[in-house]
Amino acid sequence: MRYKLIISYDGTNYSGWQVQKNAPSIQSLIQNALQTVLRHPLNLTGSGRTDAGVHAKGQTAHFDTDIHFEPYRLRGSLNSLLPADIRIVDILPVAADFHARYSASGKVYHYHLHLDPISDPFTKLYCHQVFGSFDLEKLKKGAGYFIGTHDFISFANVKDEPQKDTTRTIKRLDIIEQKGGVRLEFEGNGFLYKMVRNITGLLLDIGAGRVQIEEIPQIFEARDRRKAGTAAPAQGLFLYEVKY
Amino acid sequence: MRYKLIISYDGTNYSGWQVQKNAPSIQSLIQNALQTVLRHPLNLTGSGRTDAGVHAKGQTAHFDTDIHFEPYRLRGSLNSLLPADIRIVDILPVAADFHARYSASGKVYHYHLHLDPISDPFTKLYCHQVFGSFDLEKLKKGAGYFIGTHDFISFANVKDEPQKDTTRTIKRLDIIEQKGGVRLEFEGNGFLYKMVRNITGLLLDIGAGRVQIEEIPQIFEARDRRKAGTAAPAQGLFLYEVKY
Repeated sequence: MRYKLIISYDGTNYSGWQVQKNAPSIQSLIQNALQTVLRHPLNLTGSGRTDAGVHAKGQTAHFDTDIHFEPYRLRGSLNSLLPADIRIVDILPVAADFHARYSASGKVYHYHLHLDPISDPFTKLYCHQVFGSFDLEKLKKGAGYFIGTHDFISFANVKDEPQKDTTRTIKRLDIIEQKGGVRLEFEGNGFLYKMVRNITGLLLDIGAGRVQIEEIPQIFEARDRRKAGTAAPAQGLFLYEVKY
Repeated sequence: MRYKLIISYDGTNYSGWQVQKNAPSIQSLIQNALQTVLRHPLNLTGSGRTDAGVHAKGQTAHFDTDIHFEPYRLRGSLNSLLPADIRIVDILPVAADFHARYSASGKVYHYHLHLDPISDPFTKLYCHQVFGSFDLEKLKKGAGYFIGTHDFISFANVKDEPQKDTTRTIKRLDIIEQKGGVRLEFEGNGFLYKMVRNITGLLLDIGAGRVQIEEIPQIFEARDRRKAGTAAPAQGLFLYEVKY
């Protein structure tokens, strides 16, 4: 039987989702916990990696087992083995051909910006604090340039391999006001490596007046990661949902 | 001139508000930052202590200085010197006879309970996770016994000094539902040492069925701290507001 996990984690203390040499990864901790409880070797396949310091509300993964269990009991056993900053939210039986990565139809990421000059001690690990003057209207206007189907190669930390398709569709990029600032809600059919943080980084440059809105089309056309400036920090980013 | 500070802090990494030997306290860090910026010795007097691990959204304190400054500039200077988990929210000039502790007319504390069996990685340091079956209706009913003017000596970690007045008035104790659980909002004219955590601890025993609601009057009458059970953990408690 194949099962899907829905996982929430605070990425602050981890090297990221993926198994790394010499550093704890979230994937390895959950895979080890599953192996401990189910008592057989298995592979846990995630929907994709999240980088060091990036958080998740709805990461997904799948694994196979022939052991029979009640999902809520396995969830309890896993959560008692896992550190408190990694929680299994749900365990669901899925079809044998379900694949956490390849079956996904889309993803939703949230990026949290704190715009109030007084930062909040309770959310400092979960948002990016913006200092200095900032024009939120410019950020909103700039965000409109990213919606739709585009070649996002200028916003991807990928090697320029001509055979790799770097076209993606962003269905929505909503700027939602919340206490102390805003969150950027990205929904798309898929995202290139560091694409959300790179787009957010450019929008931060636009809000701060370091880059003009009119430059965005040129940055798309340049097909050069270096033109898009600095990625926004990991701590503001949440993988919110993986859609199937 | 006398000034009032309004202070927010994440108490996780501190020994509490008050200056302690051999452990960092929030009071000492702010007092040191003030002395660095204003360049003279001064005393920072808080509205009262908070224990190790207890948080604050609206702690208050006062200090005196003859140095002239723009409050928002001093706030910026202090926040740049202080660690990110302590933030000066506001600095206000007050009358010469204002006293952060003795002028206070009341305080509001919030205690956050997470009742969902799946704990939340993002609030684990800011609430108490309740495990096992729990009857929220019993907690609500039990809370009613604490509203009004009572001798709270059974709920205070104080030495039994007959001359000390242990009568306090709780104006409201509201149980507000929120994501994953509830928060208990205590508003009163003053609170004895550990009183909020001791009352919350008893309400947790009542919700879990370890203590019956009918026993509450006997616990008040016993005038014995040991009858009221275990204090609720520090991490769920916030000093929310000091009223003047």
